[in-house]
Amino acid sequence: RINGDRLWDTLMDMAKVGPGIAGGNNRQTLTDADAEGRSLFKTWCDKAGLTVGVDKMGTMFATRAGTDPAALPVYVGSHLDTQPTGGKYDGVLGVLAALEVVRTMNDLGIKTKHPIVVTNWANEEGARFAPAMLASGVFAGVHTLDYAYGRKDPDGKTYGEELKRIGWLGDEEVGARKMHAYFEYHIEQGPILEAEDKTIGVVTHCQGLWWLEFTLTGKEAHTGSTPMNLRVNAGLAMSRIIEMVQSVAMENQPGAVGGVGQVFFSPNSRNVLPGKVVFTVDIRTPDKEKLDRMRAKIEAEGKKIADALGVGCTVEAIGHFEPVTFDPKLVTSVRNAAEKLGYSHMNIISGAGHDACWAAKVAPATMVMCPCVGGLSHNEAEEISKEWATAGADVLFHAVVETAEI
Amino acid sequence: RINGDRLWDTLMDMAKVGPGIAGGNNRQTLTDADAEGRSLFKTWCDKAGLTVGVDKMGTMFATRAGTDPAALPVYVGSHLDTQPTGGKYDGVLGVLAALEVVRTMNDLGIKTKHPIVVTNWANEEGARFAPAMLASGVFAGVHTLDYAYGRKDPDGKTYGEELKRIGWLGDEEVGARKMHAYFEYHIEQGPILEAEDKTIGVVTHCQGLWWLEFTLTGKEAHTGSTPMNLRVNAGLAMSRIIEMVQSVAMENQPGAVGGVGQVFFSPNSRNVLPGKVVFTVDIRTPDKEKLDRMRAKIEAEGKKIADALGVGCTVEAIGHFEPVTFDPKLVTSVRNAAEKLGYSHMNIISGAGHDACWAAKVAPATMVMCPCVGGLSHNEAEEISKEWATAGADVLFHAVVETAEI
Ligand SMILES: NC(=O)NCCC(=O)O
Ligand SMILES: NC(=O)NCCC(=O)O
Repeated sequence: RINGDRLWDTLMDMAKVGPGIAGGNNRQTLTDADAEGRSLFKTWCDKAGLTVGVDKMGTMFATRAGTDPAALPVYVGSHLDTQPTGGKYDGVLGVLAALEVVRTMNDLGIKTKHPIVVTNWANEEGARFAPAMLASGVFAGVHTLDYAYGRKDPDGKTYGEELKRIGWLGDEEVGARKMHAYFEYHIEQGPILEAEDKTIGVVTHCQGLWWLEFTLTGKEAHTGSTPMNLRVNAGLAMSRIIEMVQSVAMENQPGAVGGVGQVFFSPNSRNVLPGKVVFTVDIRTPDKEKLDRMRAKIEAEGKKIADALGVGCTVEAIGHFEPVTFDPKLVTSVRNAAEKLGYSHMNIISGAGHDACWAAKVAPATMVMCPCVGGLSHNEAEEISKEWATAGADVLFHAVVETAEI
Repeated sequence: RINGDRLWDTLMDMAKVGPGIAGGNNRQTLTDADAEGRSLFKTWCDKAGLTVGVDKMGTMFATRAGTDPAALPVYVGSHLDTQPTGGKYDGVLGVLAALEVVRTMNDLGIKTKHPIVVTNWANEEGARFAPAMLASGVFAGVHTLDYAYGRKDPDGKTYGEELKRIGWLGDEEVGARKMHAYFEYHIEQGPILEAEDKTIGVVTHCQGLWWLEFTLTGKEAHTGSTPMNLRVNAGLAMSRIIEMVQSVAMENQPGAVGGVGQVFFSPNSRNVLPGKVVFTVDIRTPDKEKLDRMRAKIEAEGKKIADALGVGCTVEAIGHFEPVTFDPKLVTSVRNAAEKLGYSHMNIISGAGHDACWAAKVAPATMVMCPCVGGLSHNEAEEISKEWATAGADVLFHAVVETAEI
């Protein structure tokens, strides 16, 4: 069994880096706080006797050597970056539980044939630089390095510049490493495990996603002196599209979601009808055909809505992953570990995207989940219990050791 | 007749200060660009032999002495501040045409019984610091100085701090000056004069306004893993309220407008349902009862819409003026001047708010308008012809000289 108190203390130490405004964290990708979190994590890895490598995307790989020089490593990780108003566990739990796995192996003197690599993927959240899971996407060959370096934050700073600025541009070719297997432990970020009173989610699939960035072009005009019939109102078009996205998601129940989290009005002045509105639609479902049908409908209906108001409309897909089926053998090893350890468990489909989704393209991969209070995530009030955290880390430990072979 | 070329050159010189990104201006209230524009205006006033005073709100008063020491001055002005993506004429034309009026009086050696005071009101736009027409509102006793000093821009900087910072905090008590009359010349900012092919708008009234700031409180949650039925979606509530505002405005046709120019999503991340949405509704009509009915309906319906989604909703009135009827004698003097000079003219109701609306509370006041191309304003593409600018300044000159008495 892993050391639940040590895991919890480590989580709380990391939570001090990039504190939020309401008890959570703001440790967004490639900020100074991200750099500080990385340094702290590296000192822990050094103390645990791990060898830390960094690739050209800034992903950190901390290796515990195996006994067979020819055996490919088992990768275990998640991400330390957060949302602007993020929780203390989203991603962080997966990285620090992986660290706890190797700390426990050290304590118990366990040697494995396959090396273990504790992994901190860069820019999983995609909050500062879209899309999400950017570094694992480059690792899996889904994006080019140039594409990733050119991604811009809202201030126009690029990923490439910022990675260099914070001093975490590594020298490893991205994706050069080969994996025997990939494990990721994460909080559910949804309400199912808690509602079903299960401690462990055995993750069989992950739903797919499209991020559709709408750019609406209206006519900037005075809100007071512009008669209603002369308005070309991009904000009104946006409102109708948000309502339409809601309808499309509802039509596709059960098993689909759709919503809008980000909106930019321009010039965003109280007495100016917006000349430009940019916003991102997020749609997801585990069914590939349904996902693509929803996308097509939202694009077509969105354009019709804008057109009816004389508003220009372009749509760019700025994030996408297909639904994923995780490796049956690894899924079984997770389920067996939960069973053996006596933790209640159930199969679950991940609602959020994870680096495991891209890793699954290049290696057998799976995930372990634990509940979170009220299903709340991407919220500073995100909460889990020490017991849940410990249970998932125990399951991870057993599944990883089994896969890495003693 | 005034010197149209000189007026136009002066407008173009001011347009060089705080250039926009598309041919217009970004010279927002109490920015460095505002300070630069004020200094330039002051050198022009000095050269014209005017005495410049500044009050504690930063409003500039440039006086041309009268012949009767006991006679109250005739004030003529508007504002030099602009929207973030504003035009070159909105406000600026009124201030620089007032300057052209005294320049012409100097050229012609005209002496008046009443002094003439060319006025640059501070923060007319209300874009950086709500509400609009802030300094003239304090002048007219509608707001206290403390209220005005505490107004915050989106970065949290206050009016009081920023006024001091740019070096234009004057020593005059706000509102201590008494006026014989107030004239303001402005572009129409609407399409009527151009459509009716009239060069001069004789402004008889100004429509009233409410700015209603809605604060919607939802639940920040993950866009992927939060099922539709568990969402408390403040962005969806906002969309429905924007649609409802549109309906209320349409129900109140003709003679009413309603729209939303400013929206803030928080945390404004693509994969986070917004926990908080703040936006401002702008409604206007020349009919006081209708205006208040519209306000009441939008507040009540807005709360119902939010309630149905479980979203918290508070509404704060952050801007208001009642419909204004301008002084009949001054209105007649404007109409007579247009008639005498042979300019086509018509009566018009101002769609936008102006400092004249507050000045009308403490003195006889009126306005002169000229057309603008396509009715476009609060847009960098705002355009007028030199002929229109000249015609309005001519009318202003004659009405002002008549009122100031030779
Ligand atoms: N787990 C997580 O929140 N990942 C960010 C990408 C997503 O929105 O699913
Ligand atoms: N004239 C003008 O645009 N004033 C700003 C206040 C308003 O929105 O009417």
